[in-house]
Amino acid sequence: MQKMQVLENIWYCAAHSAEVSDKPLARIICGMPMVFYRGESGTPAALEDRCPHRQAPLSMGNVIGEDLQCDYHGFIYNNKGSCVHIPRQDAISANNKIQAFTTVERWGFIWVWWGNQEKADPSTIPDLPWTEEDGRRVEYFYWRVKANHQLMADNLLDVSHVDFLHKNSIASKIDPTAKESEAPKVTIETNVDGNTVHSLRIVHKTLLAGITAAWHGSEGPINRISTGKWEAPNSCILKLQFEDMDGTINETINLDHIMTPETDGSCHYFLDWTWDFGGPDGYPNNEDVHEEQCGIIEGDDIPIVEAQQDTLELFGKVQDIPVKQDKFVIEVHRVLQRMYEEQGLGLPPEVDRMAAAE
Amino acid sequence: MQKMQVLENIWYCAAHSAEVSDKPLARIICGMPMVFYRGESGTPAALEDRCPHRQAPLSMGNVIGEDLQCDYHGFIYNNKGSCVHIPRQDAISANNKIQAFTTVERWGFIWVWWGNQEKADPSTIPDLPWTEEDGRRVEYFYWRVKANHQLMADNLLDVSHVDFLHKNSIASKIDPTAKESEAPKVTIETNVDGNTVHSLRIVHKTLLAGITAAWHGSEGPINRISTGKWEAPNSCILKLQFEDMDGTINETINLDHIMTPETDGSCHYFLDWTWDFGGPDGYPNNEDVHEEQCGIIEGDDIPIVEAQQDTLELFGKVQDIPVKQDKFVIEVHRVLQRMYEEQGLGLPPEVDRMAAAE
Amino acid sequence: MQKMQVLENIWYCAAHSAEVSDKPLARIICGMPMVFYRGESGTPAALEDRCPHRQAPLSMGNVIGEDLQCDYHGFIYNNKGSCVHIPRQDAISANNKIQAFTTVERWGFIWVWWGNQEKADPSTIPDLPWTEEDGRRVEYFYWRVKANHQLMADNLLDVSHVDFLHKNSIASKIDPTAKESEAPKVTIETNVDGNTVHSLRIVHKTLLAGITAAWHGSEGPINRISTGKWEAPNSCILKLQFEDMDGTINETINLDHIMTPETDGSCHYFLDWTWDFGGPDGYPNNEDVHEEQCGIIEGDDIPIVEAQQDTLELFGKVQDIPVKQDKFVIEVHRVLQRMYEEQGLGLPPEVDRMAAAE
Repeated sequence: MQKMQVLENIWYCAAHSAEVSDKPLARIICGMPMVFYRGESGTPAALEDRCPHRQAPLSMGNVIGEDLQCDYHGFIYNNKGSCVHIPRQDAISANNKIQAFTTVERWGFIWVWWGNQEKADPSTIPDLPWTEEDGRRVEYFYWRVKANHQLMADNLLDVSHVDFLHKNSIASKIDPTAKESEAPKVTIETNVDGNTVHSLRIVHKTLLAGITAAWHGSEGPINRISTGKWEAPNSCILKLQFEDMDGTINETINLDHIMTPETDGSCHYFLDWTWDFGGPDGYPNNEDVHEEQCGIIEGDDIPIVEAQQDTLELFGKVQDIPVKQDKFVIEVHRVLQRMYEEQGLGLPPEVDRMAAAE
Repeated sequence: MQKMQVLENIWYCAAHSAEVSDKPLARIICGMPMVFYRGESGTPAALEDRCPHRQAPLSMGNVIGEDLQCDYHGFIYNNKGSCVHIPRQDAISANNKIQAFTTVERWGFIWVWWGNQEKADPSTIPDLPWTEEDGRRVEYFYWRVKANHQLMADNLLDVSHVDFLHKNSIASKIDPTAKESEAPKVTIETNVDGNTVHSLRIVHKTLLAGITAAWHGSEGPINRISTGKWEAPNSCILKLQFEDMDGTINETINLDHIMTPETDGSCHYFLDWTWDFGGPDGYPNNEDVHEEQCGIIEGDDIPIVEAQQDTLELFGKVQDIPVKQDKFVIEVHRVLQRMYEEQGLGLPPEVDRMAAAE
Repeated sequence: MQKMQVLENIWYCAAHSAEVSDKPLARIICGMPMVFYRGESGTPAALEDRCPHRQAPLSMGNVIGEDLQCDYHGFIYNNKGSCVHIPRQDAISANNKIQAFTTVERWGFIWVWWGNQEKADPSTIPDLPWTEEDGRRVEYFYWRVKANHQLMADNLLDVSHVDFLHKNSIASKIDPTAKESEAPKVTIETNVDGNTVHSLRIVHKTLLAGITAAWHGSEGPINRISTGKWEAPNSCILKLQFEDMDGTINETINLDHIMTPETDGSCHYFLDWTWDFGGPDGYPNNEDVHEEQCGIIEGDDIPIVEAQQDTLELFGKVQDIPVKQDKFVIEVHRVLQRMYEEQGLGLPPEVDRMAAAE
């Protein structure tokens, strides 16, 4: 296996809680084929997805207690990756084992530690407490995207695309050719705190349209407040609020978009969408949110990000040309550049393309 | 992007006129992803198909006036490839530009200049005046073929395949195992004039069958006269006539087959089929021609040419074994060999295979 | 064409008799695209699948007498690979020929000699006389498998997978977590005789289940006797018998599984399943056997073997960990290792992985 150039000794989001059960789940994380399953105690486990006897994938096997039995010849592995049973043979050689990966279940996600397993520290998992707060609703999403994880993350870090790519759904009401001086005023602040990047972007006195107007119950005008927090490897922890001209905020949405590399050209996209208005009988309820977000992300975001990936594969080495609105993306790429250097890793092209362009 | 080994400073056919509209068209020409669109003035334009900001394809964008707006973040490019608008930012850096390609619309096709754009000379576009002559009808075709452009062009330059590959449609009435002395007499003349190759092939006193007998209204006998003119990069400008034994010619068909490389293993195939008999109320009319030509080219020619491509990929380097009937193909390959050498390019395998075999 | 690393001067099974007719069959054997056809005398022939004129596949052509005519330009090749007819040209150059491969039709299969054609010796074709014996029925199968031929052959050489992979069809009645001391006694003998490996495996006093119980008419107990004979390149000539406790054997099944490389990552899987019980009016008849074996091999074996291939491609170089039950596989890999060395070939990974693991 060619090792992927990804950050190590860090948690990657691997699955939604609901995806991991007593039916094994095969998923490639950071280029490593892994099998995820939940033993009868309910504890999730993650192993290298191969039986070392003859290289059949363990994900085709069956959970027995806390262990996993290969479907080909019946070998059984425990959740530490050690072979504990060979049919018709009591002796088991010491090298009959595979890698196990530390997992933690938190905030509705299964997190897996990539790197030195002894260093796994659950306190560094991103903090998403709103997913469990009273008075809020949560809807979870998963997509497999045929594009590098950084392209998908950059999409989320860059709120300025909303008015164009999402012009038929969650955009503000704008003139697409308006000059800087003609458009609603935008203020952007970014702030780097260690390996975390914070961003605050306010579009002042703007009009809502489409779905956002429906959420708010009117076109406004409002101040559109986007708060962002990015944490490595690629958690985009966003908050969107509509502030009326009298300072009241009636709608707060937390959108936690979390990207995990599958291969260099594909990634896993996890999302929880958590909101404090509408509800089971009001609008939007979970079905509304599911339909709206699938429409937006499958209809707009994933197609353009996959098209970027295709373009990059066709053109090969090119440099991006960042602009003022890209401040959050640029700060994140700077932190990534430092983190890759600290780990003695070369800079992958998806980080370098924007970093070197500055 | 790996540069393709193709002739430069020459026009390539890129699209039919009807394909280029205010809805952008993505098409790879000579390995370069291009976007084609028509501004509100009606003028066609061709740009590199990427926004240099973040590498989204411009072909997913929208035409505004004579310009093209990227759908991702709203950047606007004019038809010279210069960025003319960035949302919420008045300053535009000078390097925010992409390549523009000179286009000319002529004879129902959009031609694009590949090479040094300052040398673009519309007078060197192939001359196809019959497409606009009174008393003639034209039907246009486009196919994307999963084979190198030269394999597809060679098919058109080589009329001898008609009696075998098209035995169920436009072949003459022949015995497939007839010896040279038993078959109708064939005369072939070829003539090289600079970078143009002319060919005249007459099958004397032969019987028509199938579709050709239907066009002529009888089986003949007739003299089957095929006139060919080849111009670089790969325009196969053909004419087919049926001459009765008294010297009368009642049917003249112009078939302009024009091949453009997409990648090393795929090409664009453009065709106008122009004829002076039948007509709107007679046979054949445009619907007849459309159905007949699609049947022949999609049913016979493209499958065998794509199979040649597959065979070449499986076998790797092999040499062709040309025969007397290949005279037109051989002369064309000799001209191509000289043109590649004059441009300081190595000989691509699809030209070399026949050229070196002589 | 990149030459595949396979054993030479040996017969490979290429097709079932019924697959080769006057309609040419294209099949890649040991990486070589071949065309198989049967001339009007009924004799099968195998040629390189390309016309050397312009590299169109001859398999798209037509049989004329004992010869094959290319569909593109009508060239005709005899079953020795020599061009014998060019339309409108009496002279034929001596280099206008392709490779012909010696074929023999025997036991319902077409065998093709790979290597020096002058050494082809029909006496070394595997002996499968039961396919023609009175009182037996035969059902033939073919599958194309997207995995290396050795992975598929190893599956057949390794009877211990039956109780796990085929737990819902032909497994014995077992406890999947039973310790060695708790399970029915198994004896295994293997014996190497030149390039042939013999194996005898008996599961003593075991209970049948599912399909095997249906064949036998009861669950037993019986002794399950598996006799195996392997011959290079990869014929797995197996026999399965159920012996009652009084020593009577009422069911004998011959299963000849024969693997032929197509490419490094794909193979042809031929099988005859020959049995001496049930019959046209009893159970199982040919339809029963067809349905049962397709269910087992398409539902269980091919999916896991293709999954092994995928796993190996994802993980790259890994070593297997053989166990006691793998004795037959191990002996076969040792013979293969010696045969590859004798032919001066490096050891392909699919052989090396188990051989080096010992």
